[in-house]
Amino acid sequence: MRITEIREVAGPLAGAISNAVVSFDQHKVSLVAIFTDVVRDGRPLVGVAFNSIGRHSQGGILRERMIPRILEADPDSLLSPETGLLDPARVLACALTDEKPGGHGDRAAAASAIELACWDLLAKYGDEPAYATIARAHGREPVSGGVPVYAAGGYYRDGDDLGLLRAEIGDFLDAGYSAVKIKIGGKTLAEDMLRIEAAIDVAGSGRHLAVDANGRFDRAQALAYAEAMASYGLRWYEEPVDPLDYALHRDLGEMYPGVLATGENLFSRQDVENMLRFGGLRPDRDILQMDAGLSYGLTEYVKMIALMEEHGFDRTAAMPHGGHLLNLHIVVGLGLGGCEAYPGVFQPFGGYSPDCAIGEGTVSPAEHPGFGLEAKDNLAAEISRLVA
Amino acid sequence: MRITEIREVAGPLAGAISNAVVSFDQHKVSLVAIFTDVVRDGRPLVGVAFNSIGRHSQGGILRERMIPRILEADPDSLLSPETGLLDPARVLACALTDEKPGGHGDRAAAASAIELACWDLLAKYGDEPAYATIARAHGREPVSGGVPVYAAGGYYRDGDDLGLLRAEIGDFLDAGYSAVKIKIGGKTLAEDMLRIEAAIDVAGSGRHLAVDANGRFDRAQALAYAEAMASYGLRWYEEPVDPLDYALHRDLGEMYPGVLATGENLFSRQDVENMLRFGGLRPDRDILQMDAGLSYGLTEYVKMIALMEEHGFDRTAAMPHGGHLLNLHIVVGLGLGGCEAYPGVFQPFGGYSPDCAIGEGTVSPAEHPGFGLEAKDNLAAEISRLVA
Repeated sequence: MRITEIREVAGPLAGAISNAVVSFDQHKVSLVAIFTDVVRDGRPLVGVAFNSIGRHSQGGILRERMIPRILEADPDSLLSPETGLLDPARVLACALTDEKPGGHGDRAAAASAIELACWDLLAKYGDEPAYATIARAHGREPVSGGVPVYAAGGYYRDGDDLGLLRAEIGDFLDAGYSAVKIKIGGKTLAEDMLRIEAAIDVAGSGRHLAVDANGRFDRAQALAYAEAMASYGLRWYEEPVDPLDYALHRDLGEMYPGVLATGENLFSRQDVENMLRFGGLRPDRDILQMDAGLSYGLTEYVKMIALMEEHGFDRTAAMPHGGHLLNLHIVVGLGLGGCEAYPGVFQPFGGYSPDCAIGEGTVSPAEHPGFGLEAKDNLAAEISRLVA
Repeated sequence: MRITEIREVAGPLAGAISNAVVSFDQHKVSLVAIFTDVVRDGRPLVGVAFNSIGRHSQGGILRERMIPRILEADPDSLLSPETGLLDPARVLACALTDEKPGGHGDRAAAASAIELACWDLLAKYGDEPAYATIARAHGREPVSGGVPVYAAGGYYRDGDDLGLLRAEIGDFLDAGYSAVKIKIGGKTLAEDMLRIEAAIDVAGSGRHLAVDANGRFDRAQALAYAEAMASYGLRWYEEPVDPLDYALHRDLGEMYPGVLATGENLFSRQDVENMLRFGGLRPDRDILQMDAGLSYGLTEYVKMIALMEEHGFDRTAAMPHGGHLLNLHIVVGLGLGGCEAYPGVFQPFGGYSPDCAIGEGTVSPAEHPGFGLEAKDNLAAEISRLVA
């Protein structure tokens, strides 16, 4: 198996929404295709993936640094000696040649797209869904079936914000979701409490509602919200403060009895190790949301899961940021706690294919080879243009 | 004052050298020019800077994200209400519009080039060297004169490595440097100790010699080197381990009596805060090497210096990574501990202009307007092509 070409294209995210910190209408995502000399049905076997949502397309880093390194490497150095197939870990290491330690930002997202495309390729080579390839590669029995899913939405909107929020959550429940997440931090605390109460009213109880501050609060705000929300019994309180402020996470954990969730902006195992050492997260309740699509791919992500387990967390405490097919297959393959979904937004990369069954609060992967990105119509169109 | 155009070009670094982790022969640096509607001598006033060395050019992030944001902003929103001139902090904030928190990597270097070009522009507008503008903007009296400088070299070379190392250090001393830094970690501990002893022999004593592991050691290696080097009384032991492994830095500080130096791969004030909180650095001896050219520019760097002072460090404990004119003016302007120099390598971005006096272990800025990049012949040629 030889890589013959790697292509990248930046695709926009449809749906002009904003959270407490950023607007997504200028965000793009890098779609990557790895071509090989393996021929199937008269065409080269191609692995496809993308970097996850929220940290921009990475064409510069991919085209100027990573893709040339891989194409210039000795092809045999990229193969697993056991299988003779591409080894995602070796491809990742090659992509990171001559990169200094630290500085885990855009580079981590760029590398993810390449590393995850290798997993798509391996699964297609084996003519099986990616969750099965991922499970077996990590010593697990492939098991299909549903995993917990929640609908992330609740962005701020002009007009009748509370009414629109109620209607949105009602739609989520009608669509088969039993848990939802809404944004906080974009209005005053008092206004946000009205949003939370309205959302709980529709969702049924606090344990069906998570809230997400997107890292915007300072110490005083984070503590004030924690105190105001303590009695709601919320599903979780997500990214209250700067994602790297470990000391403040620790202080919050000491005063907030509910569940804290964080990790979508931790992009390396070293950052995760620091959060676990210094952030005071509680193995009996808190949630970690690292996203393989933003953090050097699955190779690094499984090391993060191992660190969690060393620190006393169950792997079901891992619920990745990034509601899309890549993370669905990873969650199913590794037996993690569940998935996010963004109904109607972040298209065409967000969300699942129509044959991924959603109902009773779970989502199940379909059985297409690889991540099944080609089974999602709007994404299939992007992939066809890239691969043609 | 209005920005009319921002240009970027990626320039290679001459000198194929390698440290314990990376080879620099594929590294490039982004040179950025900010054009304004201010006319001087019949030409638009232009501010020029580059991102510092070691983390690659950033054309993708600059062209796809940051430059369009600045050019599309309300021009008045980029000005200081007090001076009516461009405000580097406002330009930086605009460049970071819709960027999520955390993930301080390539983005931080990209932003640096723009932010520092603003300082070059402001200094040229005032027809004074950048150190004077920087000093005054931070409530300090501009004082010229020499600051400590050391020569960083001692890379591994084929052939008579020890002989070449001795000759190199001899040349540094002849050129007016009194302190030098060499690489460690690329050979065995025993071989590295021979390099260190040879270097001490030429340099005169351990206090004239720093050693740099570029973050490559694991715990066992870092501790073994610390033990082996403890009696040398070295100037410092730099980046022994992963730059984000705060716990291991703390453990090293507890057993190594000498000076530790780190920080060149900390790119945000939050990362620096974590190092200061959890890394066990000792205010009475250790050195912090953050580099404004890699970490969102001077706006963020002065916040890092303030954090150091809050944690009991003197600002002379700040000795930036990155031996070039940008950091020389920052060190002089802010009264920091000194500069690095890379004689003969990392050209044309590394090093100082011929009229920056080097002698008796110090380097002094010349009095050209701005950072004086145009006074460095090889860099002036690059700038002319970009600005023409």
